[in-house]
Amino acid sequence: MRSQNTQAFESYESQVRSYCRSFPTVFTTAKGPFLYDEQGREYIDFFCGAGALNYGHNPDLIRDRLVEYLQKDGVMHALDMYTSPKREFIEFYEEKVLKPRGLSYKLQFPGPTGTNAVEAALKLARKVKKRQNIFALMGAFHGMTLGSIALTTDAASRAGAGVSLGNVTHVPAPYMFPELDTLQYMETLLTDDHSGVEKPAAVILETTQADGGIYPMPVDYLQGLRALCDRHDILLIVDDVQVGCARTGWFFSFQRAGIVPDIVTQSKSIGGYGMPFALVLFKPELDLWEPGEHNGTFRGYQLSMIAAKAGLEMMLDQKVEEKVRAEEAIFAQAMEKIEAIAPGKIATRGVGYVWGVDLAACDGENAPGTASKRVLDLAFEKGLIVERVGRGNSVVKVMPELLIDQPTLRRGLDILTEAVREAVAP
Amino acid sequence: MRSQNTQAFESYESQVRSYCRSFPTVFTTAKGPFLYDEQGREYIDFFCGAGALNYGHNPDLIRDRLVEYLQKDGVMHALDMYTSPKREFIEFYEEKVLKPRGLSYKLQFPGPTGTNAVEAALKLARKVKKRQNIFALMGAFHGMTLGSIALTTDAASRAGAGVSLGNVTHVPAPYMFPELDTLQYMETLLTDDHSGVEKPAAVILETTQADGGIYPMPVDYLQGLRALCDRHDILLIVDDVQVGCARTGWFFSFQRAGIVPDIVTQSKSIGGYGMPFALVLFKPELDLWEPGEHNGTFRGYQLSMIAAKAGLEMMLDQKVEEKVRAEEAIFAQAMEKIEAIAPGKIATRGVGYVWGVDLAACDGENAPGTASKRVLDLAFEKGLIVERVGRGNSVVKVMPELLIDQPTLRRGLDILTEAVREAVAP
Amino acid sequence: MRSQNTQAFESYESQVRSYCRSFPTVFTTAKGPFLYDEQGREYIDFFCGAGALNYGHNPDLIRDRLVEYLQKDGVMHALDMYTSPKREFIEFYEEKVLKPRGLSYKLQFPGPTGTNAVEAALKLARKVKKRQNIFALMGAFHGMTLGSIALTTDAASRAGAGVSLGNVTHVPAPYMFPELDTLQYMETLLTDDHSGVEKPAAVILETTQADGGIYPMPVDYLQGLRALCDRHDILLIVDDVQVGCARTGWFFSFQRAGIVPDIVTQSKSIGGYGMPFALVLFKPELDLWEPGEHNGTFRGYQLSMIAAKAGLEMMLDQKVEEKVRAEEAIFAQAMEKIEAIAPGKIATRGVGYVWGVDLAACDGENAPGTASKRVLDLAFEKGLIVERVGRGNSVVKVMPELLIDQPTLRRGLDILTEAVREAVAP
Amino acid sequence: MRSQNTQAFESYESQVRSYCRSFPTVFTTAKGPFLYDEQGREYIDFFCGAGALNYGHNPDLIRDRLVEYLQKDGVMHALDMYTSPKREFIEFYEEKVLKPRGLSYKLQFPGPTGTNAVEAALKLARKVKKRQNIFALMGAFHGMTLGSIALTTDAASRAGAGVSLGNVTHVPAPYMFPELDTLQYMETLLTDDHSGVEKPAAVILETTQADGGIYPMPVDYLQGLRALCDRHDILLIVDDVQVGCARTGWFFSFQRAGIVPDIVTQSKSIGGYGMPFALVLFKPELDLWEPGEHNGTFRGYQLSMIAAKAGLEMMLDQKVEEKVRAEEAIFAQAMEKIEAIAPGKIATRGVGYVWGVDLAACDGENAPGTASKRVLDLAFEKGLIVERVGRGNSVVKVMPELLIDQPTLRRGLDILTEAVREAVAP
Repeated sequence: MRSQNTQAFESYESQVRSYCRSFPTVFTTAKGPFLYDEQGREYIDFFCGAGALNYGHNPDLIRDRLVEYLQKDGVMHALDMYTSPKREFIEFYEEKVLKPRGLSYKLQFPGPTGTNAVEAALKLARKVKKRQNIFALMGAFHGMTLGSIALTTDAASRAGAGVSLGNVTHVPAPYMFPELDTLQYMETLLTDDHSGVEKPAAVILETTQADGGIYPMPVDYLQGLRALCDRHDILLIVDDVQVGCARTGWFFSFQRAGIVPDIVTQSKSIGGYGMPFALVLFKPELDLWEPGEHNGTFRGYQLSMIAAKAGLEMMLDQKVEEKVRAEEAIFAQAMEKIEAIAPGKIATRGVGYVWGVDLAACDGENAPGTASKRVLDLAFEKGLIVERVGRGNSVVKVMPELLIDQPTLRRGLDILTEAVREAVAP
Repeated sequence: MRSQNTQAFESYESQVRSYCRSFPTVFTTAKGPFLYDEQGREYIDFFCGAGALNYGHNPDLIRDRLVEYLQKDGVMHALDMYTSPKREFIEFYEEKVLKPRGLSYKLQFPGPTGTNAVEAALKLARKVKKRQNIFALMGAFHGMTLGSIALTTDAASRAGAGVSLGNVTHVPAPYMFPELDTLQYMETLLTDDHSGVEKPAAVILETTQADGGIYPMPVDYLQGLRALCDRHDILLIVDDVQVGCARTGWFFSFQRAGIVPDIVTQSKSIGGYGMPFALVLFKPELDLWEPGEHNGTFRGYQLSMIAAKAGLEMMLDQKVEEKVRAEEAIFAQAMEKIEAIAPGKIATRGVGYVWGVDLAACDGENAPGTASKRVLDLAFEKGLIVERVGRGNSVVKVMPELLIDQPTLRRGLDILTEAVREAVAP
Repeated sequence: MRSQNTQAFESYESQVRSYCRSFPTVFTTAKGPFLYDEQGREYIDFFCGAGALNYGHNPDLIRDRLVEYLQKDGVMHALDMYTSPKREFIEFYEEKVLKPRGLSYKLQFPGPTGTNAVEAALKLARKVKKRQNIFALMGAFHGMTLGSIALTTDAASRAGAGVSLGNVTHVPAPYMFPELDTLQYMETLLTDDHSGVEKPAAVILETTQADGGIYPMPVDYLQGLRALCDRHDILLIVDDVQVGCARTGWFFSFQRAGIVPDIVTQSKSIGGYGMPFALVLFKPELDLWEPGEHNGTFRGYQLSMIAAKAGLEMMLDQKVEEKVRAEEAIFAQAMEKIEAIAPGKIATRGVGYVWGVDLAACDGENAPGTASKRVLDLAFEKGLIVERVGRGNSVVKVMPELLIDQPTLRRGLDILTEAVREAVAP
Repeated sequence: MRSQNTQAFESYESQVRSYCRSFPTVFTTAKGPFLYDEQGREYIDFFCGAGALNYGHNPDLIRDRLVEYLQKDGVMHALDMYTSPKREFIEFYEEKVLKPRGLSYKLQFPGPTGTNAVEAALKLARKVKKRQNIFALMGAFHGMTLGSIALTTDAASRAGAGVSLGNVTHVPAPYMFPELDTLQYMETLLTDDHSGVEKPAAVILETTQADGGIYPMPVDYLQGLRALCDRHDILLIVDDVQVGCARTGWFFSFQRAGIVPDIVTQSKSIGGYGMPFALVLFKPELDLWEPGEHNGTFRGYQLSMIAAKAGLEMMLDQKVEEKVRAEEAIFAQAMEKIEAIAPGKIATRGVGYVWGVDLAACDGENAPGTASKRVLDLAFEKGLIVERVGRGNSVVKVMPELLIDQPTLRRGLDILTEAVREAVAP
């Protein structure tokens, strides 16, 4: 490894830093599917800001709008005062995003992070239903502030809370106990007067669990859950922070199942250009907020609104949803090849442009995550950036930007395949 | 009032929106101390993004750096991977900000909001001290996510949490019971084996309470609190989100008292240009974080780092701290005049560039906040933007940008004075 | 129904009173298996103080000891000072109860109620393991004070707490999802690093759930649970308050499975004569209590110790355990006949001297518990006292005293059979 | 010290045992104000079961009733079914205790311990007011189960809970900060919209704190608190478990201040003869309980009802309240003499028959409680049993039975005086 100037980080930045440990180089510029470091090396980026860069790095269209707005001294920070960029964003979102999809939601602009959107959604659900409990799925990730971390399932993250986490009941994800009808399990929790579990205000889930190890929820599960929530007067919250914004082939990931959640959280790629931004959508009849009951300093960061609207325009004009659905097969084929490297020991899962290569069975007597770490390191050497998620950190997460050209996509998948081959070879 | 095109907000945005209700116009551009609406009207901004715009709107120096960075396709979003803007920010912060002030802190980049910084600080304090309780002051505001909202004291915000808020003990602020030595009160909570109050991991406070109604904490109180924390092995957290970044005449508000907190939270103006950004600083020996134990998607938003460093350069080059300390007298004089409008019924308080005009005693038999609302409305008509805080929302918060020229500052204070006069006239 | 003098109860006692609503008469005396009301009517008692009267009403042996002790002015109330009755009880319990069963436990005398014993057990488990979470089974009942009510599963009881109940995870009971290996489910909660469930200090259970609807836990389940707790360094608490004291054919109900819990709670029949009394037993190495760390005014009520020792003598001398095991078949036969009344619609379950007749399927379109209430009322008219438990209150609980003579036992079972027949007849 | 047969306790009883450590002898019988050990030694009992023996040990009247009831095989255990002893108790209590005092309360029979009564009171208050928070006083003791321990203030007891204790706000007791109007402090918590403290369902207090160190609350404080509760629609709960039953000179301790609480808890001496028994009293309009919403196996222990009624008869017939008020002066005089032993270093406080000798200032550089422990040991040697309470366990609690003859009372006080003299002598 070439020597890098990373002294400042090591001396002054908290050891809480993490991703830099996987990619020991200093990045400077980026474009489309590529990242560049200060030695000028090019990397294909299959990590994409953990889902924040669905439209790739620095697309010209958005960049030009940002520069133009900055140069005309557009108002930058306005809390939740009225501004013209916000008005344009809202109008575009309602007319071009929601209405064509048959959706009627009100928009809330919480603080510009996913966890903030989730915290707002929890508050609203509890307020509307006057219940304290929330159901979340085992395997879920919903954020790192105290309200959302109680939903998050990763043991290390939970331990970091430093206090007891309550008012949440974790229910098994459908893939965990194939012999068990997990919807029926929830039904029992709700109808058995001796279950010991309080009726929740809401059920929250990712339609494809990302951090849990890339698990797309079956369509009939999602539909059954929607029906269960209706039967029991429980709100359904879809957390679309990571797998929304066309990542799965639909702008809203729940469109795949033809269901309509009561509340939706968005962040990451909704910011268009890697910009901090978040939205909470909810059915108009749920809008029981008092003015200012949830607020935040950066909920009116105008540059994000400029980028967000431009990003949505790109997504629609370039028919990104259709592109993703059409190209899902490319992933499926590559994954088949990867599985064939060690039949029965490698599992792959995914939908649209979000896939996982599960190498847990390759760890043998090594510590969990050994094989996946080897893949990550080999890929990085070969010029591909991927990260790991899931139980034991043993799943390589494959998440390129959605506008990537097919040759680069295939090149990245080839590197990944090669890295897996080298990593699990005898 | 001229008719405005605000239909989109009213139809589609959640009724949680708040500040727009006070300022019924659509803002488009901004520069220095001024905001402009789409009718081209100019407003002097004494609100400043609730403290996020200490260097004014859109300063050229920062703007040019941002445009330059965008135009060269600098990496925008990098989670916590190494990047050159981050390295430059860290080095500048350590060399130019911390060292000259004799401070040795490690830097953590949490999600880019104040509440996220506070949540990280709470986690770290609880982890380091292995205790769950935290002391916060009555009158405090520390954020709106579940961990920080338990510290926040505003009843409406707390009610919004929807669950019981625990693991926090609120202690009286020194101004609340003049007859009581509130440090001695805390000492008793800690030493009386029948106080019923658990020893905390930390005490958190704003050195000047902003949301509580503009209350600068006395220097001897801050020093006594530092000593009390030392005596009892308790961490001292200063939340400098709103009153940091030179607002009080010192880059770190606690410099006023010559104390060194164990943990410091920054956000709002640290972003330089209204950019979402936040920092947690802590003494190196407290850096017990595991990698990734607190994370967040936008903790590596590079544009904020560009703006933040440029903002710090400006602050230092233009000797903003000294300017603020020197000009405090302008406020003091204006406040004296305002108090004289209704002697004994108007109270003013402040330090540096953050002041409050407390009109509670002017409400008479009207609802709390009636007089302050009248001031706000009259000021807005006259071209001045101010907001309200404090008990009963009865305190007008006066918080211009720090680089404002004296004539504009005086003009704004004159408008405020006139608005108060009209509002409280018989 | 004859008119009764129950005015005082109706006027002055809180409407929280419950059992009196099922048995609208005033009881005066009792002996062996019989209760008598003030009209002189005799009732066979198959309720037995909800399990507090395993040796029947007022056995002469115990009565004589109590009278003798009272008449010699034996010390009555001594907190936890040393007394001779307490010394005799401890010695007898260690020598005659524990040692012959190969058990080595230390004894704690908590406040004289079951819930108090459970609260003490929870404290000790959490203290020893330094973990806050506890696993409890769905269907469980462990008491009504705030610590134990968090374990209790009955929805109405939980709602009465008035606050959010935390630090407990309810796991499915083995009978609830026959397709699911519920031990494996627990194993997954413990080993999946994304289960979202904190490792508990202890698992607590009744080896036969009483309030949940009379469900004896299978022996292999109990053994598997013991092994699981060992594997994961988790304490096993058996709550023997209701089904201990020979009720199931073994003094300790867990002897049926040949397992040794780490902590055992006893109350109800341990008091011998319906006396308030409770014990917590635990392995000596768990005795990390500080002096007085759990206390209570009536933990040294000497009359209970006199009765408790006398009761144990009776239990051993009269070989009650063997009697119960031998006579289990009488119940089994009666239950078979009851099931035959409406094949497929009546389910019966039980072990030893604790049985349930589950009439849920007989309610048809009526409210849950309609059929069981009819049985209870008919039985009462015919001179038999039984109560209801379980989901929807639809299970008639059959729990005679253990020293009952066979003719009376059979007579009671015949009345029950007849009541069921009349209740579910078309 | 003579050698004692205490092997069984040391080998088999948990080290949680506490009082026995102060009184290393084995007690066998007791009568009136005297305890006797197995060497036949007589002790004057100024501890009285921590307040459970207000009518002395084994009064003949009650004993005879108990024996008679046992001998006629009166029903012993009846849960909350109707029984004749319960009817007689209720009628007597209403007619002879409540009505003559102008009180109208409904009676609830919770489990037979003080903590159980407090848990029931908390549930009811939270249910009626639909609020979760409760105010309790610093210095308070209300029990050791999870709901009541959150009210209890002793640090060691709280630590034993093993979980975070919430939904309670501790407010300073009036004696703690003489410069502070602690009622006004509470008023501020309730009316300041930035206090950070949730409005409680109830305020609970002992009118004389016992465990906190014997602090009678001033009459005007109690009246002011009643008024404050009325003003803010908050319930007032008086916990009369320890200082009720005529201990302070009034059957209900709150009669001293002429106030009427909304809810009252009783236990300890209400059982008459050291019997486990407890009551919750509340205004009829608060009786919103559902049947069985709070229950407990031993809430219908009939022997306690026999003893309780007999005890009340004695208390009334022998005019115990008047006796106590008249003899308060005997204590006052003795305390004056005790204070004179070391002027300025010994403080005494009390009312009626409950007094404290505070020796904190005598500990000098020794550990807190050293001086009080010496007094306790010396008194025991001289044939007097007293215990310690309060901050640092430095207060000797003086609490003889109320029917004691004056010579014995004076003899006991003389022994105490002598023990103090020896303990604090130079």
